[in-house]
Amino acid sequence: MFTDQEKEAIYKAIYTRRDVRTFRPDPIPSEIILKILDAAHHAPSVGFMQPWNFIVISTDEIKNRLAWAADKERRALAIHYEGDRETQFLQLKVEGIKQAPLTICITCDPTRGGSHVLGRNSIPETDSLSTACAIQNMWLAACAEGLAMGWVSFYKKNDIRDILDIPPHIDPLALISIGYTDHYPIKPILESANWEKRLMLHELIFHEKWGSQK
Amino acid sequence: MFTDQEKEAIYKAIYTRRDVRTFRPDPIPSEIILKILDAAHHAPSVGFMQPWNFIVISTDEIKNRLAWAADKERRALAIHYEGDRETQFLQLKVEGIKQAPLTICITCDPTRGGSHVLGRNSIPETDSLSTACAIQNMWLAACAEGLAMGWVSFYKKNDIRDILDIPPHIDPLALISIGYTDHYPIKPILESANWEKRLMLHELIFHEKWGSQK
Repeated sequence: MFTDQEKEAIYKAIYTRRDVRTFRPDPIPSEIILKILDAAHHAPSVGFMQPWNFIVISTDEIKNRLAWAADKERRALAIHYEGDRETQFLQLKVEGIKQAPLTICITCDPTRGGSHVLGRNSIPETDSLSTACAIQNMWLAACAEGLAMGWVSFYKKNDIRDILDIPPHIDPLALISIGYTDHYPIKPILESANWEKRLMLHELIFHEKWGSQK
Repeated sequence: MFTDQEKEAIYKAIYTRRDVRTFRPDPIPSEIILKILDAAHHAPSVGFMQPWNFIVISTDEIKNRLAWAADKERRALAIHYEGDRETQFLQLKVEGIKQAPLTICITCDPTRGGSHVLGRNSIPETDSLSTACAIQNMWLAACAEGLAMGWVSFYKKNDIRDILDIPPHIDPLALISIGYTDHYPIKPILESANWEKRLMLHELIFHEKWGSQK
């Protein structure tokens, strides 16, 4: 059972959690890192396969190589935008890998649990979805701990495999920057930058069948 | 900033949340459903694309058809297990669709936000990963509200599309049973059933490179 105060705390984390791209260099106590990784590890997973690993990166040498891979991809993607949208895109700060004291690469091992993982046999991508649930747990825990987190999704997976010695069958699903920040955003960065608007919840809810609204 | 009490509440939800397969028939107040869907809607999404929809199903007719699709898949999957593992598999209760007062189908629309969603251009499956984050938010909110939730991943997606009139390009990513329960598990059901064990966190953490443990 949860008290009203406990419920409020959970919604507070859900509603104030933001994707952050600007960090202070201050180190993070290692016991706090363990706390948020343990929160990740207690996510649900299909067939209880727990397909995740966490590569914790703190050296400048490796962070610089990851930042290089992300920036290369950012420049490649910019070519797909034109005119004002390209200018707007290039002004967005899409990652803070060099600034943040830590980067955590979260991987998904599709072979964990053997060849016939319960549930994954029907929907193979449930291993990645489980790993995403772990990231969301970690994000809410980080938010509660006063930490800022940014999910970087600009890279070619094979660049990340090369830099971090990740075997070919393992998916480097996310690069996460973590640190403290002086600029915790109130709204999503892409909403403040007028890149996209928040959709209305009631337009996303259907009843009984697709497309049927009350 | 979060107080110590607030932090504890968030970890309490993360650590006590379970996948549930046994429900009471009592209805769920519609304002509680809206609260947990709004929690889902406040998940992070790549390029702020918010790719999710929620099909809320309460009629027996449609729940029975969904349960039929899940049971058909369960029987097909049982054929891949042999001997004791097959017996053990067939004894597991893998879904509670008919029991739960509500089923929510959570879908992912890969076309939302146009052809060049920021971030998704690099890693297309980030739309599904965003939707999984929404499910985890919803799960923690449901747990806080005293609701039990079960993620059913036994079905052929085209059966679900047929039953719910979902267009071919939309992914019926998850079927979620929700209701109250008298049997909220303390441990994951698959751990209690000796199907899988919880892995040790420290064995899942690497430093700087894949495979490097301190």
